[in-house]
Amino acid sequence: MSRWFSERFAALAPYTPGEQPQDRQYIKLNTNESPFPPPPAVAAAAAKEAGRLALYSDPECAALRNKMAALYGLAPENIMMTNGSDEALNLAFMAFADETRPLIFPDITYGFYRVFAQVNRIPFTEIPLRDDFSVDERDYLVRGRTIVLANPNAPTGLSLPLPAIERIAAYSRDNIVIVDEAYVDFGGESAVRLLERYDNLIVTGTFSKSRSLAGARLGFAFASPALIADMNTLRYSTNPYNVNRMTAAAGIAALENNDYFMNNCRLIRETREWTRRALEAERFTVLASEANFLFAADKRIPGKTLYEELKRRGVLIRHFDGPRIREYNRITIGTREQMEVFMTKIREILGGI
Amino acid sequence: MSRWFSERFAALAPYTPGEQPQDRQYIKLNTNESPFPPPPAVAAAAAKEAGRLALYSDPECAALRNKMAALYGLAPENIMMTNGSDEALNLAFMAFADETRPLIFPDITYGFYRVFAQVNRIPFTEIPLRDDFSVDERDYLVRGRTIVLANPNAPTGLSLPLPAIERIAAYSRDNIVIVDEAYVDFGGESAVRLLERYDNLIVTGTFSKSRSLAGARLGFAFASPALIADMNTLRYSTNPYNVNRMTAAAGIAALENNDYFMNNCRLIRETREWTRRALEAERFTVLASEANFLFAADKRIPGKTLYEELKRRGVLIRHFDGPRIREYNRITIGTREQMEVFMTKIREILGGI
Repeated sequence: MSRWFSERFAALAPYTPGEQPQDRQYIKLNTNESPFPPPPAVAAAAAKEAGRLALYSDPECAALRNKMAALYGLAPENIMMTNGSDEALNLAFMAFADETRPLIFPDITYGFYRVFAQVNRIPFTEIPLRDDFSVDERDYLVRGRTIVLANPNAPTGLSLPLPAIERIAAYSRDNIVIVDEAYVDFGGESAVRLLERYDNLIVTGTFSKSRSLAGARLGFAFASPALIADMNTLRYSTNPYNVNRMTAAAGIAALENNDYFMNNCRLIRETREWTRRALEAERFTVLASEANFLFAADKRIPGKTLYEELKRRGVLIRHFDGPRIREYNRITIGTREQMEVFMTKIREILGGI
Repeated sequence: MSRWFSERFAALAPYTPGEQPQDRQYIKLNTNESPFPPPPAVAAAAAKEAGRLALYSDPECAALRNKMAALYGLAPENIMMTNGSDEALNLAFMAFADETRPLIFPDITYGFYRVFAQVNRIPFTEIPLRDDFSVDERDYLVRGRTIVLANPNAPTGLSLPLPAIERIAAYSRDNIVIVDEAYVDFGGESAVRLLERYDNLIVTGTFSKSRSLAGARLGFAFASPALIADMNTLRYSTNPYNVNRMTAAAGIAALENNDYFMNNCRLIRETREWTRRALEAERFTVLASEANFLFAADKRIPGKTLYEELKRRGVLIRHFDGPRIREYNRITIGTREQMEVFMTKIREILGGI
């Protein structure tokens, strides 16, 4: 930290993204990317737009929002497009939480929530998950708080049923409830259809997981027009041209090829279940994930050691060195072939201890 | 504003970007874009990367920073790449200004500085430019302030000589001095070579103007490694994957074709001088711009009327309805052919009053 760095951020601990190694080729099961490339039409749409880069992108993202609206049964006024869903979350935290309405979220969840809270100097409380890592909805039936829930949750993969989300949103209309649905296409139930009834609800999502566009940076927030307008006030006060032309074009083409992605999600769910059974056959404890990853632990080997041994063998998974979860690893579901290699390496490592 | 919007931002007035009309075709001289497309190699590089979007981009932007370092004679540790230079400016303001070190910048300058200050709740003072719109460097020889200067300035186009920037940076090493060089390739003198001696200096820049990549969203900050590290702490606390894969690839290809862009800058300077003389021949007052735009006024017609009359005739320029400048318009320099049409319309409008 330099002597000029603002005291405001003296205690800030930035987010640590998963490794993006540039050196060697790994079987990359560490950052919940899709193992399937976007279809050729997406690359073609982005490539076509690449010839038009001299002009600014549309800060309203009108064409893309229209497509989103049609697919999700919303109005364009319910939608804000962002530079990844991280930007949507950051804007939602800024807009709707402060000293008077602190944030609450689970103690084990997406690690960026705590960072967004710190960087915006918003007080927050982390609510412990139950011992089985499930969310106790009663913890969120409170007043005067802005509530953030990843559903399905990360890194556990566990999801809350939609009626629980609804009860949380209904409990106090003064609370804003942010549901981060980054992984919803892999098995969870989306809260999108609650938006009509709950004007205090925000649903965020991303094209990075189910739609194979992590490298394009495209996310979104759905909410009532008034909440979207507030978040846009902040977007226009930080980075109005947040979505570049190529990414907007890629997003439109992705929506036009939605069946391809939804079929990929089905394949990933099948491979997830195959991998879960294979890990359980090796006596792993595996949570009942509805996301594109599994959260798994084995009593015979520390989580960090397993991560390191796999990395040595060319397979990257994600280890979080936090309380309650350091015996676990988060394993992104790749192709069936990748998961077969992964299981072979697992057996090799377990056979050697 | 919804009833949930944080009181923190009750008085926030967001930035108003220039019009990006999606309806009809205009001669677009309103947002300082380049009239020249990026070269085919840039589109080809972006298109190639479009096939690899399933994986996250490199949050370090290592390959692009290495290219930047080679071109600008810096180390990669001196460089942070951002989603447009707006993001670089926002991160610099956040990192190095607060209640204890308020911001100062000219009263007439890039309108986003005031917005970045407000959204980050940083106190700021706008220092009046002289009557001729020039910066009086003595206003910036102060202690306990974070100083922001666009050089060349916008929307005036006037620039400060490098020794003045150096005296401002040298006056107090406790001050951070941010020099926004969005327009430097069109005639100003870059402060990059001062970086070696002034570890309290930050230079920001963009690929949106001189390098024809407004629609790709690519900007940067140059500074001492310690300041870059501080800004990265904030970048990793807001949006680590801020630059997408296609834009990073386009940026690398742009640097490999730097001569093409620098030649375009030369053409734009020539066309700027041609336009300036043509406007002066029509009795306009035109400031001595070193940017890719002119700031011009005519006593016979209010600035807003001229803007509106040109828009009716298919030519978009930028009007700012602020004190001291509402008689002026900012006119982006397009191709020679575009500026000839512009002058024809100007004569038509003036002939009709």
